[in-house]
Amino acid sequence: MAAVTYELIKESKESMARLGKLHTPHGVIDTPIFMPVGTQATVKTMSPEELEEIGAGIILSNTYHLYLRPGYELVQQAGGLHKFMNWSGATLTDSGGFQVFSLGDLRKIREEGVEFRSHLDGSKHLFTPEKVMEIEMALGADIAMTFDECVSYPMDYEYTKLAMERTTRWAERCLNAHHREEQALFGIVQGGMYPDLRAISARDLISMDFPGYGIGGLSVGESKSLSYEILDATIPLMPRDKPRYLMGVGSPDFLIEGVIRGIDMFDCVLPTRIARNGTVFTSEGRLTIKNAVFKADFTPLDHHCDCYTCRNFSRAYLRHLFNTGEILGLRLTSYHNLYFLLNLMKQIREAIAADSLLTFRREFLSRYEGKEVK
Amino acid sequence: MAAVTYELIKESKESMARLGKLHTPHGVIDTPIFMPVGTQATVKTMSPEELEEIGAGIILSNTYHLYLRPGYELVQQAGGLHKFMNWSGATLTDSGGFQVFSLGDLRKIREEGVEFRSHLDGSKHLFTPEKVMEIEMALGADIAMTFDECVSYPMDYEYTKLAMERTTRWAERCLNAHHREEQALFGIVQGGMYPDLRAISARDLISMDFPGYGIGGLSVGESKSLSYEILDATIPLMPRDKPRYLMGVGSPDFLIEGVIRGIDMFDCVLPTRIARNGTVFTSEGRLTIKNAVFKADFTPLDHHCDCYTCRNFSRAYLRHLFNTGEILGLRLTSYHNLYFLLNLMKQIREAIAADSLLTFRREFLSRYEGKEVK
Repeated sequence: MAAVTYELIKESKESMARLGKLHTPHGVIDTPIFMPVGTQATVKTMSPEELEEIGAGIILSNTYHLYLRPGYELVQQAGGLHKFMNWSGATLTDSGGFQVFSLGDLRKIREEGVEFRSHLDGSKHLFTPEKVMEIEMALGADIAMTFDECVSYPMDYEYTKLAMERTTRWAERCLNAHHREEQALFGIVQGGMYPDLRAISARDLISMDFPGYGIGGLSVGESKSLSYEILDATIPLMPRDKPRYLMGVGSPDFLIEGVIRGIDMFDCVLPTRIARNGTVFTSEGRLTIKNAVFKADFTPLDHHCDCYTCRNFSRAYLRHLFNTGEILGLRLTSYHNLYFLLNLMKQIREAIAADSLLTFRREFLSRYEGKEVK
Repeated sequence: MAAVTYELIKESKESMARLGKLHTPHGVIDTPIFMPVGTQATVKTMSPEELEEIGAGIILSNTYHLYLRPGYELVQQAGGLHKFMNWSGATLTDSGGFQVFSLGDLRKIREEGVEFRSHLDGSKHLFTPEKVMEIEMALGADIAMTFDECVSYPMDYEYTKLAMERTTRWAERCLNAHHREEQALFGIVQGGMYPDLRAISARDLISMDFPGYGIGGLSVGESKSLSYEILDATIPLMPRDKPRYLMGVGSPDFLIEGVIRGIDMFDCVLPTRIARNGTVFTSEGRLTIKNAVFKADFTPLDHHCDCYTCRNFSRAYLRHLFNTGEILGLRLTSYHNLYFLLNLMKQIREAIAADSLLTFRREFLSRYEGKEVK
């Protein structure tokens, strides 16, 4: 029996959306799901109990960051990522691919792997598919991702093809190097903005029979309509009985559009990153808490939210905390934004169950999209 | 009936230590007690629930800081400090005296009051006893403190006398200006390092019959043995039936020594401030979490502590959080340090009840004083 299996519960009558269950060694997770990101073995500002409280069943950690600090040997020595950070839910580690490619001039790509310099101290390192598997196995998440090459946007057809083919060869090397039974290894479909390359990538990875598939290289600067086109062209080629994970996506509208196109899993630093700048999601659009208009506003962030922050604190108090640089402010907005997205995913699942997701999308977006609370 | 009353439960047979209960409109607090400091209407990094969890019955907020941001009118409009910050326990506000005197060149002291410039934007302000009462009444804490002049150390006899006498006149003006029934106003004994001035200050303030007394102007740079001498000379002059509050003291040894000399209440930013620098109290001395020796130490901060942090996280993980600048690290050490002091006060109360405080002091200090966990 595989470490992680996907159980298809229901396919929507009105779209590609589906309900499922992801069975992992650390719990069963209802999909579609959003995974909070704990880059450095901590979801910024949050305690593990708070993550449980908001219903996070699975979180993501970054291989690149943990490799640099504290080092994967140390995490292994601690008994793995779960024990190290005291998280009893499920975990997923990315492969570091996206991070090392984002280093720009600091990295060189070869067939063997990627040589890069640490963004922290300039020290030299080499990530090969085999090395990344060694690291991810040591970290011991429930789900590991293959080492892939994510091209920047825009990128010409020739290079995108070359990178996609290398990603496929690397996926094969990852598969050969991976031998941790209690960990599932997901492949990553690449191919940039070219539907025919996406199709080749999907076909070749599917032939390797991974227990799940990431879709990488989207939300890298292209328009949303282009991302949706690529999803429309790619997802129908993917197997029904495996989970599909759209990497690096976390804006409310994109989550809904992704689910409608058949995505089961998402992750993104967006909710916690904007929270630390004082921007929150609300059912009536985004809200920037530092705005003077909230100075004496004693109502909650979101008038339709029942999260801990909204039940207990006012916009005026949160504005004060941000104006004075108080850490509690960062905690409360981070909590709210993650709750908002996890609650959105719950509403999405309920709408799929009721075959009303398209109505839900229309109603949600009419209140949210392009709006700002003022 | 006064807003806040002190009930004397037991006087120690072996020292000046005593057990009591402070009855406030927001709960009954067992004394001796340590009050966490929430300078800007938040105890740094902590949620109100976490403060409750560690047993904080009363917290302190700073009048000077709240006056500047968000402004006392706004806190009043929110329904007072408790509602503004969502804290259901008791609160105390200092008078801003210590803060404005700490501004140095930015302030001028006159009989009328203190003219000062904001440390934030240089704007000009005037704190008079009457103005401070207006602010503290608006903030609405359970206990307000009179506006006093805290002299620096060292300071000559003449000026210390002058400042002490002015503090007494200001205390009288505060008393006349204060008219908030549900709030108690405590006087502050000054007199620097001169026992005869302390005696005059105590006598004159006691004649005004405040429901409680602060002892200000200690722990300002003098040696601990000198502070203890001043306490020894002052406290026997103070009434048995009123609470005694030693302002700005929070190191474990000083707490024990203060209680032994008859103190009932303490406050200090020390536990949360050093926590944010990665230094924690343990039963075996202080510990600096960034030290390399803790890199692979998977044991808790304090091997004898049962707080949330110690039950769930290792030194290695905390070191990683500090090395990577993660906010959860600041939360966990702040939580631990406050728990440590509140738990110390609980042990002190139990030792007074058992008439074994002197033994407790000897045992505690033999493990703690001058020690560093390495």
